[in-house]
Formats: sequence, C-alpha cells, structure tokens
Amino acid sequence: MDSKILRFAVILAGCGNKDGAEIHESVLTLLSIDRAGHQYQCFAPDVPQARVLNFLTNAEMKEERNVLLESARIARSKIKSLSDFKYDDFDILVLPGGSGVAYNLCTFATDGDKMKVLPQVEAAVRAMHASGRPIGALCISPVIIAHVFKKVQVTFGKDEKINAIFQPSGVKAVNTDARSIVIDEANKIVTTPCYMLDARISEVSEGIDKLIQQLIKMV
Amino acid sequence: MDSKILRFAVILAGCGNKDGAEIHESVLTLLSIDRAGHQYQCFAPDVPQARVLNFLTNAEMKEERNVLLESARIARSKIKSLSDFKYDDFDILVLPGGSGVAYNLCTFATDGDKMKVLPQVEAAVRAMHASGRPIGALCISPVIIAHVFKKVQVTFGKDEKINAIFQPSGVKAVNTDARSIVIDEANKIVTTPCYMLDARISEVSEGIDKLIQQLIKMV
Repeated sequence: MDSKILRFAVILAGCGNKDGAEIHESVLTLLSIDRAGHQYQCFAPDVPQARVLNFLTNAEMKEERNVLLESARIARSKIKSLSDFKYDDFDILVLPGGSGVAYNLCTFATDGDKMKVLPQVEAAVRAMHASGRPIGALCISPVIIAHVFKKVQVTFGKDEKINAIFQPSGVKAVNTDARSIVIDEANKIVTTPCYMLDARISEVSEGIDKLIQQLIKMV
Repeated sequence: MDSKILRFAVILAGCGNKDGAEIHESVLTLLSIDRAGHQYQCFAPDVPQARVLNFLTNAEMKEERNVLLESARIARSKIKSLSDFKYDDFDILVLPGGSGVAYNLCTFATDGDKMKVLPQVEAAVRAMHASGRPIGALCISPVIIAHVFKKVQVTFGKDEKINAIFQPSGVKAVNTDARSIVIDEANKIVTTPCYMLDARISEVSEGIDKLIQQLIKMV
C-alpha cells in the first residue's frame, strides 16, 4: 500500500438503530475513513422503510419514511441512490449496522434463514467481491455477507442464535467483542460486532478503526 | 482534577443538521466524553420540530416530528425530556449544533436578534452557569450562550453576519477554524465552530475533543 487516496463506498439503511442505520456506527465509519486520509461516498436504496419506530416506546409509528432520505441525514445530504453505485468507482465497500440493515437492506429480521437481500445491495456486494475488492461489515450487516457468499468467516458478536442460522450453509461465525475484528483473508471480508453487544461508544469506535485499517491493508 | 468520573448533560435538538441536531457533532461529543472515561446523559425538549426538511431537495416536508423522539435516534433511546433536567446531577453541559438548535431550541433562524430561547433550555444554561459549571457549545449553539449571557467570548466560526448581530450586546466573537476552540475562562464557556465552516469530519472531531478536554479542566 502506497499513499494512494482510497475511495470507500458506504451503504446506509436509514437513520437510527431501531429502524435504520446505526447512527454511531455510521458516523464513526466516516470519521475513521476521513482520519486515515481517504474518501467516502454514502449510498442508500431509494425505497420505503420497512417500519418506523418510536424510539422511546418501541411502538411502530403510522408514518412512511424513505431509506435514502433518512440516510441523507447521517450523510449531511452528500449521498447517492444505491441504483447509481458503480463498483469500479470504489476500492472498498463498508456496510454499517443497525436494524435497518435487517429490515430495509434485507429481510433477515422477519424471514431469518429464508431472508432475501435487496437486489441493489446484493449486486453491489457481489461486484466488489468478484473484482477482489475488500468489504467491511459491521454489527448485523454480516448476515448479508453470510447469506450471499455462504463459505465465509464473519462475526455476529456472540449471538449463538444467528451463528446457528448460518452454520448449515458453511459460514464460520467467530465470537468476538466490540473492540475486535474478524478477518477472512481469502475473501477480503472484515467484520466487527459493534452494538451487537452491549458496548460503549469508545469500544465501537476502536473496533471500527481496526476494521477500516484492515480493509486499507487488503486493497 | 483528580480521576473523578464527571457527568455530562448533552442537549440535542432533533436528528439531522438541516432541521435537528447535527448528527456528526452529537455522536463525536458522546465519543469524546466516553473516551475520556466520563459519563453522559442526553436530553431534548419534548416539543414539535419547527420544520421537517427533505435532505435531498431542501424542501419542507408536510410531516410532524417531535424533537425528543428524533433526538432519541442519536442517543440510542437513552435520553430524557429536558423538563427532567436537574443541574445538580451534572458537572458539565454540552450543546452540539445543527439547524435544529436555531429552530427548535431557540428562534435564531427566524428571528435573528429578536430571538427567543426555549425556557427549558435557558433555565438549564442559566442554572449551570450560576453554579459555576462549565458549558460547551458547538457550531450554531453559541447563539444561545451569547443571547442569554451577553458579555461572553464565543466563536461563530467565521460568520461575520452573526458576529455583527451579537456585537451590540457585548459579545466578543472570535473567528477560528473547526480544529480550534475559543475559551472564555471567566465564564467557563468553551465553543468550537464545527460545521459552521466547510470542515472535514476529522477536523470537527479534533475541535470537539479539544472542547471536551478543556471543559474537563474547568470543573
């Protein structure tokens, strides 16, 4: 790795850990990329959110929100529709977590092992992987990686229930904590659990910094 | 300063820089406090947002959102209504920025020098100051400090228009960049411009880290 400025694509899933992208994980991802001297472009699918939650009562609200518009809040409006994503414009792909990943980017939250991945998301992930580009997945996002690629090594934190769902398809799930990453060298996939565990924001930040550094090394 | 764990109160103004709290500034404030080994409690007023914007078109949306509920997204639901704030439970108060400060916590965005501050916010700021507790204000939040206390030294980045609005009431506005802080020792007030300027997230992070460190020294 020389001092080339790398281009990161970051896919967001809304705005807020209970129905969208996990805000801390998303912001800390952007911070980590920028602090390392690299560039990022945020993307999100232009689709309705699967649900909108009241973050104090956890009740579903009778509201419609759009994943791209809500994600634009985290990206400070500097965001593109995922339908405009071209893998060739980027060196690295990162998927922060949050329930929005499991509701809006795929259907893991409702369908478990019968989950489907949003075609735009699957296409982005497959294109990056097929061209040998590294992918980072945070928190619950590794379910997408596990579902799409099967025989990969990832972490779901210490969630044995999720581990068990993906084991039959050849996924190797490694338990770890928020300050650590799990590396699949052969597939250039790096994962970290973040708030899959009851972590402090500084621990989440440490895990994300390690993930970004590892992805950079893999380019 | 010994190694006492300090209690920070953080007042949020929604979720998103154009109609609520600036998300990056809010998250980086929490990160900085936690990384320094201290504790935070987020607060927000339980009031309707003044407006809800489409973050891609900047058009106003025909939607109603609540400041406390939206702020809860940044706080991962660990938030209290500002009406429950008791100054005596905290050592330091921090106000992150975002347009929501100028629309929801006060009326600076619409009323300029005729602005009013939400009574709960003014009460919190006055109680902290009267009891000698340090206050940190980011981005546009110093307008509240300037309006309430008049003869203080703060920064509005390099916004000469805002500087001119507050100069007649005795406010000393010091121009600076996102990586720097402005300290009013006598009043225990620390400010940093963040995204008042066209800054990178890593620069904003640096300014916030300096602000939090300075506030800790002032306790």
